[in-house]
Amino acid sequence: MTRFRYLSFLTDYGLEDGFVAACHGVGARIAPHAAIIDVTHLVPPGDVRRGAAVLAQTVPYLPPAVHLAVVDPGVGTARRGVAVAAGDSVFIGPDNGLLSWAVTAAGGATRAFSLTNRQLWLGRVTPTFHGRDIFMPVAAHLAAGAELTAAGAEIAVGDLVTLPAPERLVHDFVAEGEVLTVDRFGNVQLTITAADAAEIGVEPGGAVLVHFGHRQVTLPFREMFGAVATGELVAYTDSAGLVCLAVNGGNAAQRLGMPPGARVSVTAIPQIINR
Amino acid sequence: MTRFRYLSFLTDYGLEDGFVAACHGVGARIAPHAAIIDVTHLVPPGDVRRGAAVLAQTVPYLPPAVHLAVVDPGVGTARRGVAVAAGDSVFIGPDNGLLSWAVTAAGGATRAFSLTNRQLWLGRVTPTFHGRDIFMPVAAHLAAGAELTAAGAEIAVGDLVTLPAPERLVHDFVAEGEVLTVDRFGNVQLTITAADAAEIGVEPGGAVLVHFGHRQVTLPFREMFGAVATGELVAYTDSAGLVCLAVNGGNAAQRLGMPPGARVSVTAIPQIINR
Amino acid sequence: MTRFRYLSFLTDYGLEDGFVAACHGVGARIAPHAAIIDVTHLVPPGDVRRGAAVLAQTVPYLPPAVHLAVVDPGVGTARRGVAVAAGDSVFIGPDNGLLSWAVTAAGGATRAFSLTNRQLWLGRVTPTFHGRDIFMPVAAHLAAGAELTAAGAEIAVGDLVTLPAPERLVHDFVAEGEVLTVDRFGNVQLTITAADAAEIGVEPGGAVLVHFGHRQVTLPFREMFGAVATGELVAYTDSAGLVCLAVNGGNAAQRLGMPPGARVSVTAIPQIINR
Repeated sequence: MTRFRYLSFLTDYGLEDGFVAACHGVGARIAPHAAIIDVTHLVPPGDVRRGAAVLAQTVPYLPPAVHLAVVDPGVGTARRGVAVAAGDSVFIGPDNGLLSWAVTAAGGATRAFSLTNRQLWLGRVTPTFHGRDIFMPVAAHLAAGAELTAAGAEIAVGDLVTLPAPERLVHDFVAEGEVLTVDRFGNVQLTITAADAAEIGVEPGGAVLVHFGHRQVTLPFREMFGAVATGELVAYTDSAGLVCLAVNGGNAAQRLGMPPGARVSVTAIPQIINR
Repeated sequence: MTRFRYLSFLTDYGLEDGFVAACHGVGARIAPHAAIIDVTHLVPPGDVRRGAAVLAQTVPYLPPAVHLAVVDPGVGTARRGVAVAAGDSVFIGPDNGLLSWAVTAAGGATRAFSLTNRQLWLGRVTPTFHGRDIFMPVAAHLAAGAELTAAGAEIAVGDLVTLPAPERLVHDFVAEGEVLTVDRFGNVQLTITAADAAEIGVEPGGAVLVHFGHRQVTLPFREMFGAVATGELVAYTDSAGLVCLAVNGGNAAQRLGMPPGARVSVTAIPQIINR
Repeated sequence: MTRFRYLSFLTDYGLEDGFVAACHGVGARIAPHAAIIDVTHLVPPGDVRRGAAVLAQTVPYLPPAVHLAVVDPGVGTARRGVAVAAGDSVFIGPDNGLLSWAVTAAGGATRAFSLTNRQLWLGRVTPTFHGRDIFMPVAAHLAAGAELTAAGAEIAVGDLVTLPAPERLVHDFVAEGEVLTVDRFGNVQLTITAADAAEIGVEPGGAVLVHFGHRQVTLPFREMFGAVATGELVAYTDSAGLVCLAVNGGNAAQRLGMPPGARVSVTAIPQIINR
């Protein structure tokens, strides 16, 4: 029997209603020993991709846990709920790809189960609030020591729905990708990794040319945004290991007009050394 | 002596100031064993009715607790603070009706006390922050095992301020009511219950005609919003057992222009069966 | 060895990303016994002064703790991180003045250390997320019983960066100051204290004349905002002991157009006693 001390919890439920608290309450009744770490509940409504990105970037810093994530525009339809073992954790949520990047980050799925065992659900299940009525009760029972095999029918890990990996392609000294997320500060996180940037010859101290739509912009590439003057654009490798465009002390997403999903290409600008 | 392991906490204090945290701190000092479940702190400032609705819909899913709620436009005036026993919980807050729907949902008040015992308050009470200086200290003392009778002078439960029950009336195959809440997703929750809907002949698979202001709109009535195509309007029974108007993947409150408090009437549309 | 049961946590990270949760996770791994009290994570990005004000007004109500605060526009630059002992708590954050008002409120710094001991950091430190990679690990190790002296090189408390105290000056029956904060309700908190107000002859039941920019406004001075009719302007001493301008049931900051930092002067209006 494995018990989990921690439950992590990510949704698009928002904080102005009682939805998150109702789930906390259900969890507390079933697994009073478990501490809940709220990842975020402000995923834009129904934005599975954004939820997947935040979860994958956060889970590596969380303790072993039952990770519960619910961004579920298909609630009540045929999409199934799943419990997936990966690394030293269990992931629970709708099988719509939301969990997939985090599962990969945790080392890949080792076993997966469809949530078909109603014994672990609340007695009364509403069609529109599976977070409260199905997902949290199952997560809490697993945290309290129920075997993963009790969650329901085992399914092939290859049958799990996965989101396409964030688009990125390196060729001919060009890194192509897209905007993965925009954070609270307006920092524009690309799908392009630090390794991609190195491969096309971008390095701290140099500069990059970024194309998007019909526009292009040149930015110095530095260790961090604080290396340029306040108000200046800069590119750097962010805390998740991805190339990020920022304005020191400002909002790059607004300045550049680059929303999540926007396609970009990046090239290194040769250093002109003045002697 | 009854100790409570949980304290729930609902306010309109918002999350950008330190108000909620100051209350958490006061609670932690007095009742370090108790876990606090935040219901929400984003009730619109002073909106007692909204706070009452969220509390009543959430409390049934919380463990036995001291439920502390503060939406208190009359703080510092003559309105009294109360502690109310109902079901296996205690409710604490201003006596302005905020607690009343949740108390009813918990089975009704069995005893009530005016918070007159200054021994349970902070040593210094400010006129404008009773959440920190009076309500939380009293709640935490009760969670820590103080007798409810120690809260202050007993009052008749019939003297508690109650909000009028949400308006709803069924007659002649019409259900009249109003918009109770709009949630983060823009789903429009009516005061009309699933039972009301059944009584006027509305059933899943059928359709409803909704009048509001000078407008009317026809919606299919389904088990859940996911039963219609993305972007389509739909009515269904929501996770609180109330009739709800939604747009699958969209915002019904914006689409329809229906704010909380708007009056509506609902009728069933006869099914035309094509044979 | 001192262990702390509580960690408080204030940032400008926002709640829509996973930044706060990643820090919670790091803390849970190192100090699983510690409870984290979130002060707020909605400090406007980079607003050190606002963060300092919220922290200083909240800490007096928190239990003894490691107080971790990160509003850090200079992350990754030469600014150092510090651990400061004050009262029965330890404060951790960037040495940019953020901690200074709270340290003063806690009785003043007794010892201070530069965070130079990499043993207490995460193994891999990114240049842009010291909250997760340095500050939280150090805070959690201290909460778990590491000696404060282990944080790094001791520095003179006099060398800590301090924000200038909020501007206020009393002369010739005028109190000059500025807007310190605006809270969720739109209440305008001045840097002018209740003692300043008393010194210039302002007292509950009287009235004040407030100058700001080219405007002036007269407000009754009362015990609390609830003492005037709904919609009326009022001045009072708030829950932090500062003079505050409010609209009962409304938003004074919007009504008056007074943002944080706006300069104001206050004088008492003589009472005309009708006989």
